[in-house]
Amino acid sequence: MTAFRLAVVQLQVSSDKANNLSKVRRLVKEAAGQGSKVVLLPECFNSPYGTSFFSKYAEKIPGESTQMLSEVAKENKLHLVGGSIPEEDSGKLYNTCAVFGPEGELILKHRKIHLFDIDVPGKIRFQESETLSPGNSLSTFDTPFCRVGVGICYDMRFAELAQLYNRKGCQLLVYPGAFNMMTGPAHWELLQRARALDNQMYVATASPARDEAASYVAWGHSTVYLADIRQQIPISSQRRDDLYAVTAMQQGSG
Amino acid sequence: MTAFRLAVVQLQVSSDKANNLSKVRRLVKEAAGQGSKVVLLPECFNSPYGTSFFSKYAEKIPGESTQMLSEVAKENKLHLVGGSIPEEDSGKLYNTCAVFGPEGELILKHRKIHLFDIDVPGKIRFQESETLSPGNSLSTFDTPFCRVGVGICYDMRFAELAQLYNRKGCQLLVYPGAFNMMTGPAHWELLQRARALDNQMYVATASPARDEAASYVAWGHSTVYLADIRQQIPISSQRRDDLYAVTAMQQGSG
Repeated sequence: MTAFRLAVVQLQVSSDKANNLSKVRRLVKEAAGQGSKVVLLPECFNSPYGTSFFSKYAEKIPGESTQMLSEVAKENKLHLVGGSIPEEDSGKLYNTCAVFGPEGELILKHRKIHLFDIDVPGKIRFQESETLSPGNSLSTFDTPFCRVGVGICYDMRFAELAQLYNRKGCQLLVYPGAFNMMTGPAHWELLQRARALDNQMYVATASPARDEAASYVAWGHSTVYLADIRQQIPISSQRRDDLYAVTAMQQGSG
Repeated sequence: MTAFRLAVVQLQVSSDKANNLSKVRRLVKEAAGQGSKVVLLPECFNSPYGTSFFSKYAEKIPGESTQMLSEVAKENKLHLVGGSIPEEDSGKLYNTCAVFGPEGELILKHRKIHLFDIDVPGKIRFQESETLSPGNSLSTFDTPFCRVGVGICYDMRFAELAQLYNRKGCQLLVYPGAFNMMTGPAHWELLQRARALDNQMYVATASPARDEAASYVAWGHSTVYLADIRQQIPISSQRRDDLYAVTAMQQGSG
C-alpha cells in the first residue's frame, strides 16, 4: 500500500436529481484539485433515501447518474466510488454502487447484500426489502495504491464481509452508508472502528449530510479510520452540507 | 437464556498470594449473598501480572489456588469462572482459567490461546511468549441460565474466537483480562462492544484493579455489555479496589 489522498463527499442530497448530480460533479473536481486519487460518494446520492423514492429515481446502469460518474472520473483521472443509486434491472430494484476508473471505465457494480430492515416499535420502522432486492456477490477493485473492498451501509453490520475482503488482500474498506438517528449513535462509529481494528484495514464511510427535514434523517459523520493502534481516531467527522474531507493515506503499521 | 445475576470481581491483586486468595473467598461469598449465580474473577488473580512472576506463582491444577476456587464454588453453590492463574504442567507454563461448578467440580480449563506480545518502541514492550505456552482449544460450558464461552484477555482481540463461540450456541462471553494503560484506552471497550454487537451476545470482562505502582499497570474497567441495540451501554465500569458488580442478566432482544 502506498500513500494517496482519499476524498469523502458528504453530500446534502435533495429531491432534485439534476442538482445532486451537478453538486457531485463540482465536488469531485474540487477534491481532484486538492490531489485526491480516490473519491467516495454517499449512499443514495442521486435520490432521497426512502422506499417511496427508489422506484422514481431508479436508473439502469449505464444511465444518467452513472454516465455522469464515468465522465467525472475520466475528467479528473481518479477512481470514483459512486456511493449508491437505486438501480433498475429486469424489473427489480437494487441499491447499487458503481465504481469508475480514471479512464471513465466501469470497474464494478456492488449491489447491497444486506438489506436494511428495522422495526423497533414506537421508534423506527424501515424495510428496504419492501422494494429492493439484495445483491449476492463480493466486490473488490485495485487502484495503484491499494486494493479496495466495497460494501453499502448495512453491509458494514456484518463482520464476515470485512473478513472476506481482508482475506482477498484489501487494505481499504469503503462503505457508502446512511445510518439514521437511532442506529447512527448506537452503531456507526463502533462498526467502523471494529472493522478497522479487527482486520487491520483502513475504513472509509460516506453518508449523506444530515437533513432534519427529510423523511429519513441520515446520521452524517462520514469518517475515515485507521487500523493503527497509535492512530485509533477518526480523521474526519463532517456533518455540514457539501463538505468533503481529503485525507493522506499512509502506510499502516498496526 | 434466562435471567440470572452475574458478579464481576475486580480484585486488587497484590504480591501476597495468600491474601489474594482470601480476598477472592470473601468477595465470592459476598456476591453469592447478593444472589449471584455466576462469578467472574480477573486474569492472574493470584499473582502480579508479569513474565517475571509467572514461574514463581505458577501451580499445577489442582493446586492451592484452584482448590480454593473449588471450595468456594461449592460453598456458595455457584459457577465460578476462575479468572486465570499461571499454570505449570509438564515443565511448561500456561495462562489458565479454571471454571468450577456449584458442586465444586472442575468443569474446564481454558489456556490462553493468543499470547500477548506487544512491542511499541518507546512505549511498551511485553512478551508473554517469553515464558508462557499457548493453549489450543475452545472452552465452553453450560449453566442453568445460558451457555458460556471463555477467553482470556488478548483472546478477545480476535473476532473469530467469539464467532466460533456464537456458532456453538453461547449467549455469554467471559474474558478475564488485564489490558494496560496503552491498550486499555485504545481497545478494551471497543473490542467488548464489537464482540457483543457482532455476535448479539453478552460480554463480561474482569480486570485486576488498577495499581499504578505495579510493574504492569492494568486498565481496570471491568464491564458487562449487552447486545441489545437499546442498551448498548456498559452496565458497570469499576476501577476501585476489591469491588464487584452484580448484574441482572436479562433476555437479549437485539
